[in-house]
Amino acid sequence: MSGVQATHTLAELAKRFALELRGDGGVSIDGVATLAAAQSTQIGFLANPRYRGELATTQAAAVILRAEDVEHFARAALVAKDPYVAYAKIAALFERQPASARGIHPSAVIAADAQISASASIGPFCVVEAGARIGDGAVLGPHCHVGMDCHVGAQSRLVARVTLVARVRLGKRVLVHPGAVLGADGFGLAFDADRWIKVPQLGGVVVGDDCEIGANTTIDRGTLEDTVLEEDVRLDNQIQIAHNVRIGAHTAMAGCSAVAGSAKIGRWCLIGGGAGVLGHLEIADKVTITSMALVTHSIHEPGEYSSGTPIQDNRNWRRNAARFKHLDELNRRVQALEKDAKP
Amino acid sequence: MSGVQATHTLAELAKRFALELRGDGGVSIDGVATLAAAQSTQIGFLANPRYRGELATTQAAAVILRAEDVEHFARAALVAKDPYVAYAKIAALFERQPASARGIHPSAVIAADAQISASASIGPFCVVEAGARIGDGAVLGPHCHVGMDCHVGAQSRLVARVTLVARVRLGKRVLVHPGAVLGADGFGLAFDADRWIKVPQLGGVVVGDDCEIGANTTIDRGTLEDTVLEEDVRLDNQIQIAHNVRIGAHTAMAGCSAVAGSAKIGRWCLIGGGAGVLGHLEIADKVTITSMALVTHSIHEPGEYSSGTPIQDNRNWRRNAARFKHLDELNRRVQALEKDAKP
Amino acid sequence: MSGVQATHTLAELAKRFALELRGDGGVSIDGVATLAAAQSTQIGFLANPRYRGELATTQAAAVILRAEDVEHFARAALVAKDPYVAYAKIAALFERQPASARGIHPSAVIAADAQISASASIGPFCVVEAGARIGDGAVLGPHCHVGMDCHVGAQSRLVARVTLVARVRLGKRVLVHPGAVLGADGFGLAFDADRWIKVPQLGGVVVGDDCEIGANTTIDRGTLEDTVLEEDVRLDNQIQIAHNVRIGAHTAMAGCSAVAGSAKIGRWCLIGGGAGVLGHLEIADKVTITSMALVTHSIHEPGEYSSGTPIQDNRNWRRNAARFKHLDELNRRVQALEKDAKP
Repeated sequence: MSGVQATHTLAELAKRFALELRGDGGVSIDGVATLAAAQSTQIGFLANPRYRGELATTQAAAVILRAEDVEHFARAALVAKDPYVAYAKIAALFERQPASARGIHPSAVIAADAQISASASIGPFCVVEAGARIGDGAVLGPHCHVGMDCHVGAQSRLVARVTLVARVRLGKRVLVHPGAVLGADGFGLAFDADRWIKVPQLGGVVVGDDCEIGANTTIDRGTLEDTVLEEDVRLDNQIQIAHNVRIGAHTAMAGCSAVAGSAKIGRWCLIGGGAGVLGHLEIADKVTITSMALVTHSIHEPGEYSSGTPIQDNRNWRRNAARFKHLDELNRRVQALEKDAKP
Repeated sequence: MSGVQATHTLAELAKRFALELRGDGGVSIDGVATLAAAQSTQIGFLANPRYRGELATTQAAAVILRAEDVEHFARAALVAKDPYVAYAKIAALFERQPASARGIHPSAVIAADAQISASASIGPFCVVEAGARIGDGAVLGPHCHVGMDCHVGAQSRLVARVTLVARVRLGKRVLVHPGAVLGADGFGLAFDADRWIKVPQLGGVVVGDDCEIGANTTIDRGTLEDTVLEEDVRLDNQIQIAHNVRIGAHTAMAGCSAVAGSAKIGRWCLIGGGAGVLGHLEIADKVTITSMALVTHSIHEPGEYSSGTPIQDNRNWRRNAARFKHLDELNRRVQALEKDAKP
Repeated sequence: MSGVQATHTLAELAKRFALELRGDGGVSIDGVATLAAAQSTQIGFLANPRYRGELATTQAAAVILRAEDVEHFARAALVAKDPYVAYAKIAALFERQPASARGIHPSAVIAADAQISASASIGPFCVVEAGARIGDGAVLGPHCHVGMDCHVGAQSRLVARVTLVARVRLGKRVLVHPGAVLGADGFGLAFDADRWIKVPQLGGVVVGDDCEIGANTTIDRGTLEDTVLEEDVRLDNQIQIAHNVRIGAHTAMAGCSAVAGSAKIGRWCLIGGGAGVLGHLEIADKVTITSMALVTHSIHEPGEYSSGTPIQDNRNWRRNAARFKHLDELNRRVQALEKDAKP
């Protein structure tokens, strides 16, 4: 463990993150908190103007805020263009990480030809198979499994119990949370007379630098070529990425969303929780899909897209849902009325 | 293993669970079953009046039933106000549990400062990290990982391959099924100019007494404060609980449902399978959400809520769905007709 | 690892898979690829007539195609009735599998009374509990857990980190991907006055021959009887199968779909990604459910079924969705107009 709690002066934080200091730079900070919960040794932040009123009552030693809010706070402050970004950077100083002893835990099972950097850390009960490479400063927490021909880039971290099945190449600074499975067989089947036969999955998975992959998320390897995440893709928990999918740089997907085989998603997209994208579609850059929507055709224009119906009390919903089953007929009835109404 | 199959007399069961005995208390029972499948040494139960007819044909040695059904069964019976509850309690006597040898399996890796009760059981290939505490009678099955500063309360059971990442506090008698990940990083991101930066997740997860957490379910730790499950919350498999969520006591959620960040769900709620709750919403006590509904605004009144459309054969569905895209226009056409119709 | 890359002549492939050889049988093949990506030592395939144009430009040494396409390709070919099936079979020759040394890895923990075939392979950090049986040629990759009274049939393969909790019986040639959990407690609860009590789950899980079970998929064991997958059932990743479900032979389910308790699904069904089936329903043979549809009543006729609404840009969707909340009222307004319109 990182041991004792860190302490930083305001002046030090201002310098480190290029923020403007207002007031006493000698104020000592030992943590971050919301304005409402902050104690007198912590720094708070005002990112959403809705909470401006809390500046008057917060116990925080100092606050991170925008220039236009400085006048509302009587004590020391750090002025940021984007206080949420500044808060995120400062908060990182106060995060305790479990210790990761350099080197290989004696319980780990390592293939003879695996290449492991001397500065990497391999935790208890890890298995590293033939042809694998683990880069400088990379960390494998307990119970990780780096399969055949998989690469873990420098400074990447498999938090714990991550499985890379085969031909998975992670870039640098990739963060993978527990339970994630990368490089399992894509779901490839052919129907042979009266039963399924398996279509071998000969491709791999390529994950770009700075990607993050959530707990219990699955990314299948490609059929002939690779499944690809470009750099800085951010996947939440329990996401399913099927074989041959390509996800553009800086796209973020919320929990339980899924992308079917061979779909291509653009850059800077936001995919809402539980949303689905059918196979072989293309989605342009800067597209937002709202939660639990299903994308059934390619989307060529940036913008926000949705499907589904609003939530209602069950009684009213039942009545409306029953009418949905006859919506086409209702349209025809209106057409008939329109025809009659015309002179 | 618990070894030999248990046997209990009806009189013993009646006394133990405060049920009324009708008929021969000496009848010996070695298992529970449905009326249809029961053998002559097993006890059946009649919870749903729909199956009353099976009382005449069942081979069961005895039946658990309501007072008003006693007349329909000729042999020995246990009379219960709620036969399903009585059945559940009796069935528990016949459940075989894998043996959990007291003490720490020699393969387990335990941090020097972890506090482990002498009556706890730590299975093979477990990892218990710094600052962790394992309470009296707690059981960790194989491949469990109790991370930094995590607590497992007395009599709690991590069935197998459960990961508690950091700052997770489980109450007493909590049951966690395989593949569950508690305390992983919440999905916190800030957009810094042209790429994502990570918002540190400094909070933890608090799970109340008697909670149950299903296989491959994920519960992220909070950003600044904790993600909280109050007591007796029951989560099925593959559920996603995001950071800072609070779930009220006695709420049950079915498989594949999900709750986005900072949402608050009341007590005695029932959330259907695959349902979703958007972030920062509040749901009152005693709210039922039907399967695959999406909650897009706060719900302040108890009751049942739904969204979605009914399933139909694809041809009709396509026609109706196409009309949905013009529903607002259809409404305007009807308005026009109404206007014309008025004198 | 299987070591060097395999090489096969066209004549050899034709004979082995009963395909018709056109042209030079001595052509040597060292891999499979799409027509677009194939190198001069690989074999391509034409399954979809849409790509026929690529026959003219492909670098492939040979192509698998239908008889009617032979005239469009100038070099050697294998003629197949179903080129996709032929390709799948040929591709399997080029798939490298990680080595699975016969016998039990020294780190594995095996119960004294477990029965393990001498030709089985048990990987590092596996746990095999009391009453378990592992059949001939079966493979357990790293971190697998075969619980109490579980059976793994001959030639079955648990790729890695698979958990069979209790009373799970896998047939022959079953393939289970990492993170899958079979045989966890079904979600059985009874409400006892003011809190939940657990309904013991005394049944097991039976999985037929040739089934495939995806990464992080969960299949709960039955309450009193078994949860059953008949032969050749194919489950993709992150699927949830609740207790007492029965799935008919040759049915395939795509990722993130879910089946609630006691539902029965027929044979040769196709269940789309993210689709749900409510509890206690029956679905006939040869039913297709489209992605993210919710099956709320039994389906007795083969065919394709859907629910949901089409995706739209958010602005139009909001307008239409708002009208959905008054669809029953709209219907009544149209009825009123129809009444007025009638003489």
